[in-house]
Amino acid sequence: MVFKKITLIGRSNESFDDAADDAIDRAEETIDDVHWVEVEEFGVEVASADGREYQAEVVVAFELQE
Amino acid sequence: MVFKKITLIGRSNESFDDAADDAIDRAEETIDDVHWVEVEEFGVEVASADGREYQAEVVVAFELQE
Amino acid sequence: MVFKKITLIGRSNESFDDAADDAIDRAEETIDDVHWVEVEEFGVEVASADGREYQAEVVVAFELQE
Amino acid sequence: MVFKKITLIGRSNESFDDAADDAIDRAEETIDDVHWVEVEEFGVEVASADGREYQAEVVVAFELQE
Amino acid sequence: MVFKKITLIGRSNESFDDAADDAIDRAEETIDDVHWVEVEEFGVEVASADGREYQAEVVVAFELQE
Amino acid sequence: MVFKKITLIGRSNESFDDAADDAIDRAEETIDDVHWVEVEEFGVEVASADGREYQAEVVVAFELQE
Amino acid sequence: MVFKKITLIGRSNESFDDAADDAIDRAEETIDDVHWVEVEEFGVEVASADGREYQAEVVVAFELQE
Amino acid sequence: MVFKKITLIGRSNESFDDAADDAIDRAEETIDDVHWVEVEEFGVEVASADGREYQAEVVVAFELQE
Amino acid sequence: MVFKKITLIGRSNESFDDAADDAIDRAEETIDDVHWVEVEEFGVEVASADGREYQAEVVVAFELQE
Amino acid sequence: MVFKKITLIGRSNESFDDAADDAIDRAEETIDDVHWVEVEEFGVEVASADGREYQAEVVVAFELQE
Amino acid sequence: MVFKKITLIGRSNESFDDAADDAIDRAEETIDDVHWVEVEEFGVEVASADGREYQAEVVVAFELQE
Amino acid sequence: MVFKKITLIGRSNESFDDAADDAIDRAEETIDDVHWVEVEEFGVEVASADGREYQAEVVVAFELQE
Repeated sequence: MVFKKITLIGRSNESFDDAADDAIDRAEETIDDVHWVEVEEFGVEVASADGREYQAEVVVAFELQE
Repeated sequence: MVFKKITLIGRSNESFDDAADDAIDRAEETIDDVHWVEVEEFGVEVASADGREYQAEVVVAFELQE
Repeated sequence: MVFKKITLIGRSNESFDDAADDAIDRAEETIDDVHWVEVEEFGVEVASADGREYQAEVVVAFELQE
Repeated sequence: MVFKKITLIGRSNESFDDAADDAIDRAEETIDDVHWVEVEEFGVEVASADGREYQAEVVVAFELQE
Repeated sequence: MVFKKITLIGRSNESFDDAADDAIDRAEETIDDVHWVEVEEFGVEVASADGREYQAEVVVAFELQE
Repeated sequence: MVFKKITLIGRSNESFDDAADDAIDRAEETIDDVHWVEVEEFGVEVASADGREYQAEVVVAFELQE
Repeated sequence: MVFKKITLIGRSNESFDDAADDAIDRAEETIDDVHWVEVEEFGVEVASADGREYQAEVVVAFELQE
Repeated sequence: MVFKKITLIGRSNESFDDAADDAIDRAEETIDDVHWVEVEEFGVEVASADGREYQAEVVVAFELQE
Repeated sequence: MVFKKITLIGRSNESFDDAADDAIDRAEETIDDVHWVEVEEFGVEVASADGREYQAEVVVAFELQE
Repeated sequence: MVFKKITLIGRSNESFDDAADDAIDRAEETIDDVHWVEVEEFGVEVASADGREYQAEVVVAFELQE
Repeated sequence: MVFKKITLIGRSNESFDDAADDAIDRAEETIDDVHWVEVEEFGVEVASADGREYQAEVVVAFELQE
Repeated sequence: MVFKKITLIGRSNESFDDAADDAIDRAEETIDDVHWVEVEEFGVEVASADGREYQAEVVVAFELQE
């Protein structure tokens, strides 16, 4: 059993927690065995967003299927 | 058009999100064109604060005026 | 007066803020003079947790007693 | 809307700029919504290349389709 | 010709070398042109493993097919 | 005589070299004694730019006037 | 339940694997709930050792008792 | 109350301590509320200096006035 | 024989050297076999100190007793 | 067959590419088996140079002769 | 007595340990006073090697002769 | 004109400044054109030294002769 890691950036108008959850939600839609997540970076988009957009870059680790 | 980056530390008695917002609020009071913000570090001041003070060091990127 | 730093990982089913508070709470149960805390890393445990478990690795700085 | 990041290494016999463009060109052949690119590292392959081969390792960020 | 890099975590009950080989074996099952591998991190899982499980996080670089 | 460092991001539709020069040009318009420049990061904006926009984040070191 | 991390350096005349095991063995003599271990650095002491001494600096994560 | 950080490089013909003090002295001439300083890097200029010039790059954190 | 590492912050009103010595002195009061010390960071506390307080964060490596 | 790595800084009045080539040219004058080169850092010297001097710090890897 | 550090990359068809030893062996053929070695990076060459070639980049510290 | 960088570790029973000077002195005995020096790390050897031995690892940059 081998793990693979991919990098996603989630977004939210509410908080950094929601932005991280957004990325994990998206990962779990298409990946069965998400094991853990590491936060790489938090940021806030201001100019091109409506109000402030909180962003969370996360690394998602999941089990590769045999 | 050139961007400039400056480093601010916002503070809050509530949460890391509020501490980041505190720094962005301050930046927007004096800078017109804030484009994006990168979180450098979160910390909590305990000894010299009343209760816990959440702190967010952020880098603010804005457009330099011609 | 010399400071010492130790590394703890707090956990919460709610948020990163709560996970950090969890570690600081634990530190203050046994250490008198916690001065400040630096967040080293946020993560989320998915596979072995009930729902999502938010984790905060923090460095706690406190005053060594004479 | 969530972003994903992947890592590519482009190559050129001319320059670092061309090596970065080579990787971006390849990304755009199969990915619709490339948003931005971060250069991770430049290098030059000498021994196994014909003359000097400039290489650019880049991270490509694109929008995941719903 | 462009390279792509992906991140895998191999595991072994024997050694760090075997854990790295485990990840490379898995990569070669589905990828034709693995060129080189960089070790990112070694770790040992103790609590949830039977005995000690050596882990190797590796970055695998391979040639993208035209 | 003390030096100060500031961080700028220059941009160009042509190359990374031009993007770095763009930032240095801007610095020299308002600062008399630029001494040296360190490149922090190269990137390419694709989605919100017309074609590709090369970007260079640079640190500019200059002499503070007495 | 909170985790704590400590840093140990194990040593062996045989291999890096044995040096890491040496540190984990020592940790488990006095700590009940070791969960995982991260390798920080490998080194070899030559001058002050009898032959070559392989060293592994590891971070040991364990559960703090209530 | 928000903090701002700026980067200065102080210099001295005597020692690294004096070079750091040189930068802090300069900061305090124009800034009222310097709170703390972090040393980023020490260096020595030899070729263009008279004898050896010790240099200290420091980050100065101060309180932004309302 | 296994080494352990701990992190201390020493302080001095005189110099960075004295701040490092302060931390080592404290370590040697309670630890028999200090082997070596690595300086992690130098800083200066200004606002809450009487004059300038030089600080040295050091990692102290010592032999664990059997 | 063992590789050795050395660090050189090349310079050019034209571009970062030329500065890197300058360092590689110099390496190949005295070393037979240069295999590959990694760019460590780009910079621009302004104050002590005639116009702008682009600099490239590169690590050159070559085969040690038996 | 002053130490110098150089960077070598050893190779082996067997293991990371052997690759590190390969580099240290080579260093000791021409240098009398090797004191210690730090492992910088492990990698595996696949495409241009016969089977897998384990590589260890190590920094070798030795005493400079008077 | 190309620069080369080498890494030395100087030592002193007095201070970090003296340890850095020790390395620079040694470099200047055999190298004509030392331009600048970057401090990489300070440490203190305790166990194998007479009293405390301050150490400074420095990178020395010098001009390669044509």
